[in-house]
Amino acid sequence: MRIKGTFLDEISHDIPHQNWGRKEWEDDFRYMKKAGIDTVILIRAGYGKWQTFHSNVLTREEGAFTPPVDLVKMFLELAEQNNMDFFFGLYDSGKYWVEGNYQKEVDVNKKFIDEVWKKYGNMSAFKGWYICQEISRKTGQIIDLYADLAHHCKLVSNGLPVLISPYIDGVKNVSQYLTDTTRKNGVSLRQHETEWNEIFDGIKNVVDIVAFQDGHVSYEDLESFLRINKSLADKYGLECWTNSETFDRDMPIKFLPIKWEKLLLKLKMADLAGIENAITFEFSHFMSPQSAYLQAGHLYNRYMEYLDQLKSKNNGFQKTGCSI
Amino acid sequence: MRIKGTFLDEISHDIPHQNWGRKEWEDDFRYMKKAGIDTVILIRAGYGKWQTFHSNVLTREEGAFTPPVDLVKMFLELAEQNNMDFFFGLYDSGKYWVEGNYQKEVDVNKKFIDEVWKKYGNMSAFKGWYICQEISRKTGQIIDLYADLAHHCKLVSNGLPVLISPYIDGVKNVSQYLTDTTRKNGVSLRQHETEWNEIFDGIKNVVDIVAFQDGHVSYEDLESFLRINKSLADKYGLECWTNSETFDRDMPIKFLPIKWEKLLLKLKMADLAGIENAITFEFSHFMSPQSAYLQAGHLYNRYMEYLDQLKSKNNGFQKTGCSI
Amino acid sequence: MRIKGTFLDEISHDIPHQNWGRKEWEDDFRYMKKAGIDTVILIRAGYGKWQTFHSNVLTREEGAFTPPVDLVKMFLELAEQNNMDFFFGLYDSGKYWVEGNYQKEVDVNKKFIDEVWKKYGNMSAFKGWYICQEISRKTGQIIDLYADLAHHCKLVSNGLPVLISPYIDGVKNVSQYLTDTTRKNGVSLRQHETEWNEIFDGIKNVVDIVAFQDGHVSYEDLESFLRINKSLADKYGLECWTNSETFDRDMPIKFLPIKWEKLLLKLKMADLAGIENAITFEFSHFMSPQSAYLQAGHLYNRYMEYLDQLKSKNNGFQKTGCSI
Repeated sequence: MRIKGTFLDEISHDIPHQNWGRKEWEDDFRYMKKAGIDTVILIRAGYGKWQTFHSNVLTREEGAFTPPVDLVKMFLELAEQNNMDFFFGLYDSGKYWVEGNYQKEVDVNKKFIDEVWKKYGNMSAFKGWYICQEISRKTGQIIDLYADLAHHCKLVSNGLPVLISPYIDGVKNVSQYLTDTTRKNGVSLRQHETEWNEIFDGIKNVVDIVAFQDGHVSYEDLESFLRINKSLADKYGLECWTNSETFDRDMPIKFLPIKWEKLLLKLKMADLAGIENAITFEFSHFMSPQSAYLQAGHLYNRYMEYLDQLKSKNNGFQKTGCSI
Repeated sequence: MRIKGTFLDEISHDIPHQNWGRKEWEDDFRYMKKAGIDTVILIRAGYGKWQTFHSNVLTREEGAFTPPVDLVKMFLELAEQNNMDFFFGLYDSGKYWVEGNYQKEVDVNKKFIDEVWKKYGNMSAFKGWYICQEISRKTGQIIDLYADLAHHCKLVSNGLPVLISPYIDGVKNVSQYLTDTTRKNGVSLRQHETEWNEIFDGIKNVVDIVAFQDGHVSYEDLESFLRINKSLADKYGLECWTNSETFDRDMPIKFLPIKWEKLLLKLKMADLAGIENAITFEFSHFMSPQSAYLQAGHLYNRYMEYLDQLKSKNNGFQKTGCSI
Repeated sequence: MRIKGTFLDEISHDIPHQNWGRKEWEDDFRYMKKAGIDTVILIRAGYGKWQTFHSNVLTREEGAFTPPVDLVKMFLELAEQNNMDFFFGLYDSGKYWVEGNYQKEVDVNKKFIDEVWKKYGNMSAFKGWYICQEISRKTGQIIDLYADLAHHCKLVSNGLPVLISPYIDGVKNVSQYLTDTTRKNGVSLRQHETEWNEIFDGIKNVVDIVAFQDGHVSYEDLESFLRINKSLADKYGLECWTNSETFDRDMPIKFLPIKWEKLLLKLKMADLAGIENAITFEFSHFMSPQSAYLQAGHLYNRYMEYLDQLKSKNNGFQKTGCSI
């Protein structure tokens, strides 16, 4: 199992910013490429009043602040230079859908999607969409929100693929603003399966890829959840990837890079569950040689050694349990 | 708007120490100078039993531990070498005034001020005083404490200027020892104005400069608070600076360097509010190329690019909204 | 007072992993050696399902995950190369003894000790054992657990020394998963003395060295606790070392390297209490020039300057109060 993609965490909810300029981003895309990454996913193009480029829609309708640079353009250019696919993450108001007004969240995003496609749709690296409203359970009108947004994305873009990356409502689903790292009860396997069966049924025709975050359940339960995710995705014709988080959810500091042993174990479990592609949240803070967290550079080195082992063992990658 | 000054955060309440020796401090003062900083403010010369130099007063009366080096002397020398003004932050007992005994806090500080002026008053960089008891509201006998300490500082030093740096009791006024980053209610604009009107009235003759911390209110409310601060300071003849924090209050890790976009936005708002000088808390952890937090070095680079833009745009700095 | 030993914090409960490979560890042992460290103590060989080498006992009986490398072998080799003593930390289930089943904790560890000694007992650096179940009070059957494990360690290894490193139930004994750094009440000196008198009496024939952690009490109370620890250890014939923590317990970020001034103060207090040896938790994160926390490298430099001062002052180390 290899990591084929990474999120780009600008704008971040909870990971302190690295203050990189274009030069650092150019280098980072090269480091990604060298590690076999061919897909980058903008985590969200806007959040509340913050935006990644000067959007007329967000500025006018949401009162968004004017950003100093156009990150979307830069990321698209760097993706093109490195022959990568870029997925565009939508706008998260941080309030409308949270407070139950799903329609308003959809409405502002539809205008935003139109603007974005008009502005960047001709750039060659623009290869898909990412719906950034993260969920774990079938609550509210989340199915409608996903279906409406995905449908609109495909409509304007001649059917480009749509990705979602939900989380599992597990024992480690604890707010990053609480200090605990675990809670007593997580969702059961059965309940998770029931709810996601219904969600997938409602979005199956417009969402193409689901990549569950893999960090919210205990390591010993992970493989079972991965197997359910894969089997449900197969049932409804979605591609099932794993979003293998590269930060460590078990530590008091929220968050620093994960221990390589843990990442390896998660990738191995995904492989055993029959999942073929991994993406991660995210390369630039938690896995990059130029990350402000120096543990990340060492994680990169361990991962590169692992890729070398795969290559020398298999003379090319084979999807077998023992290859990891 | 440019940053003209920085605090020196030794002794720190809550920011882990960098363990720098004289060489690192020499380099840091040069980095500051290069970024246009001409004023350094010792955040506090003592806190509880910790002190920045061997004070007879604090050792005898507070049982302070013997420090390994004389930081005050070193900072004064480095300020002199770099042609900077040094403001001396007083002693914070961490208990007397907190428990309501304002007089005791004043008394120990008066003796301390006498000792300090006798020991360091002849050093050329000693250009002002900073009262380190941070407040946000008119509580207890804070007016008397400020007025008495400021008066004594000026008395012994032939009228050197006195600086305070209060915070706003806003939605982000949350203990660094809690994990939340916001709370439900902050002080209203009107209440803030009422209380600070009264405080300024009580200290107007002895405090010269007020630099409110700018990190405790939401970004969308900041400009309104800055305008009130400026207008109140004007009314009572105080200089109004902004203390533009260079750490990020919105993140679970408390605290790492701020995103450049946020700092820029805050400086811009201060400029729009008519404020002419900015200082920051603080350069060495959050903005220095040699900070242990590597995000800080990138913030330095972004800020230096911004200074270059100002220079090339204006061929010298002009105070206009568009210059930022 | 010098630091003669350090823990090796693999597997960690709460300190994010640095993802070092063999090269980084080789360098780190050299840095340790240069700083006078001659003893390394594996903090624990297994915790829950994580293990530092592929143990048949832990894999079979605890369902432990397969680790990617054999850390124990590597540490033993590096200790040998650097002429250091290696102490082996046992297995902590994280549950049996915590839930009151002390016998089960002892039973699995006895089998584990047998396996470990058979596998690594012939390596020349294997010089002692460390019982990793950390305690601060006489609770449950902790005396029996310590005595049984220590006895078994000595039995299989022809009497190699056994080390424990308890903590003091002081005002800073606060969970790393809470944000507070202090609590209202800590154990009293008298109560601490009473309970440890009883514990030492129960383990005196099989535990050789006790190194209390020095970070859970206030700086002003520390010397008194150190004196009690030393006097109790003397009474029962145990060697009394201090485990002088090199991370800072007073900060919101849990945990970054300690301020040099604080470490120096603690070492000085231990010296005044008549303690002759210090170990630390731990070098590689908090004191190493290659730590991901750059404050650690500066702490190393400050400590090396201190060693130089000791050398030049004393032309060799003498145990006097003024030497620090």
